[in-house]
Amino acid sequence: MTNILDFVIGIDIGGTNTVLGAVNRDGELLVEQSLPTWAHEEPEKLVARIYENIEGLRRELTVARQLRGIGIGAPNGNYYRGTVENPPNLSWKGVIDIVGLFRKYYQVPIAVTNDANAAALGELLFGLAKGMKDFIVITLGTGVGSGIVANGQLVYGVDGFAGEIGHTIYDPEGRQCGCGRKGCLETYASAGGICRTVFELLSERKEPSELHRYSFEELTAEVIAEAAKRGDPIALEAFEFTGKVLGFKLADSVAHTSPEAIILHGGLANAGNLIFAPTKKHLEENLLPIFRNRIKLLPSGVTGGSPAVLGASALIWKEMEQHA
Amino acid sequence: MTNILDFVIGIDIGGTNTVLGAVNRDGELLVEQSLPTWAHEEPEKLVARIYENIEGLRRELTVARQLRGIGIGAPNGNYYRGTVENPPNLSWKGVIDIVGLFRKYYQVPIAVTNDANAAALGELLFGLAKGMKDFIVITLGTGVGSGIVANGQLVYGVDGFAGEIGHTIYDPEGRQCGCGRKGCLETYASAGGICRTVFELLSERKEPSELHRYSFEELTAEVIAEAAKRGDPIALEAFEFTGKVLGFKLADSVAHTSPEAIILHGGLANAGNLIFAPTKKHLEENLLPIFRNRIKLLPSGVTGGSPAVLGASALIWKEMEQHA
Repeated sequence: MTNILDFVIGIDIGGTNTVLGAVNRDGELLVEQSLPTWAHEEPEKLVARIYENIEGLRRELTVARQLRGIGIGAPNGNYYRGTVENPPNLSWKGVIDIVGLFRKYYQVPIAVTNDANAAALGELLFGLAKGMKDFIVITLGTGVGSGIVANGQLVYGVDGFAGEIGHTIYDPEGRQCGCGRKGCLETYASAGGICRTVFELLSERKEPSELHRYSFEELTAEVIAEAAKRGDPIALEAFEFTGKVLGFKLADSVAHTSPEAIILHGGLANAGNLIFAPTKKHLEENLLPIFRNRIKLLPSGVTGGSPAVLGASALIWKEMEQHA
Repeated sequence: MTNILDFVIGIDIGGTNTVLGAVNRDGELLVEQSLPTWAHEEPEKLVARIYENIEGLRRELTVARQLRGIGIGAPNGNYYRGTVENPPNLSWKGVIDIVGLFRKYYQVPIAVTNDANAAALGELLFGLAKGMKDFIVITLGTGVGSGIVANGQLVYGVDGFAGEIGHTIYDPEGRQCGCGRKGCLETYASAGGICRTVFELLSERKEPSELHRYSFEELTAEVIAEAAKRGDPIALEAFEFTGKVLGFKLADSVAHTSPEAIILHGGLANAGNLIFAPTKKHLEENLLPIFRNRIKLLPSGVTGGSPAVLGASALIWKEMEQHA
């Protein structure tokens, strides 16, 4: 049984910042803090700094509350092993026992998973997927991550690494991917992917475009979204193509798990209809007939705080539910 | 609690024959019968004939046993609704309440699912997937079906239609599929798919081949397998290409659910290494690095009777396990 004064710490370890917050069972963020993630800092030292921040948060709580657990979302976080393994965007090498590092400070339940899985649990407990048993969250950020829920359970797979929809292949002769292969969905539908698409379009087209003035280093998904909102033809075409690739590959995902909804998170999802409209169109066009006209394509419904922090806390709340 | 004298009837409704058997909790087939499926017979009449056969089976049992349920595997069988919906290879139109039809005769638990899901449950309870929580069964038959198990549960999806890996798309400009789209895995990796591959190769190549003497109507996957065993270059190339397409698409499936094993069932799987070797090679080549060298690619481990009948019975045994 959880008490209304119980809380969980949710932690989102990102490449630039680590955000943490105290979250109650209703998904309400009580207090939140942020600290810089220093890419070359050893994991022990980052955890020591996070510990200081957690204790700071606890002092901020206005009434006495009981810490029930710590949930961590991190790139390449592995739920089964309690580890972070060769995380992209951090200099940590090999397998880091992140749960073990936190256990030096806390004796409550501690669990880790990757950021997309945490986002899916956030939607399941606090967001648009409340009451759903089958849905997929896709994170369109620096990479493309995914969290798949089937039969009301997150799909971890045998090793904890399920949900790599970002590394399904769109074009085996396509763009080089950081994973060493070619043509992964991530190379098209991530923030970096849409920038690559703009440069491909600029190489092919003659239309005037405000995107001509950006270098590869300067261009961002936000710049493209702003240009698209002003009607820039290259920017609009880049969103159309991104939605085409994403919709096409998501049709394959639907064929696997027949979800009720697909929820798009992350920076690119913030572009709203610019990305939702073409994705929806191409998803429907590529679906097996029995799946047509019933897949909900939705933006995040986790509000009132960082979806990543709330999702990380959901990892613990979900576990407590199962063991109740 | 099940008794050692309990049994379940497993029924596999196929386009040509319907096979049924009495199966105990250990997956032992006690007795089996087969009756022709007449494509144009009304479902009520087929069920009436199956009823007669079930009662015949019961009389054959040498000791008194208790019927605990009836599990049915059928094309487009829907577990949630207890229906068979527009089944390919049968003339039944629309939604048939198959469980309702059986309930006129029996008051025990009755459930239906598609043949690939039944095959997956058979492997889980009686075959190579005993003790596994995450695996995929692929049926390479008239079509390409799949049953996905995650967290120890069959993935049915929100509507009961999950597991359509045969209708993930290999080539959007590729072969016409019966589903109305183009380039589905099924158009390459089914029994009919490998025949289409042979005709494509015959149109392109000049090598001598014993397959030159077969018409489109005459050619079968078995003929191709026999030719391949005799070293026929076109037949060998057809298996290589089939494995290439299958391995490529299965790499996407692994990225979704990170299974411990993929088990190949059905006619094409009986070709053994002719299909397993190229599938394994191309699967490994296309896997995301974290999944390499650990996916078991296996033939069916369900023995001692039709895997489809044993799998259909597993549907009931699995339910009894969950409600025990």
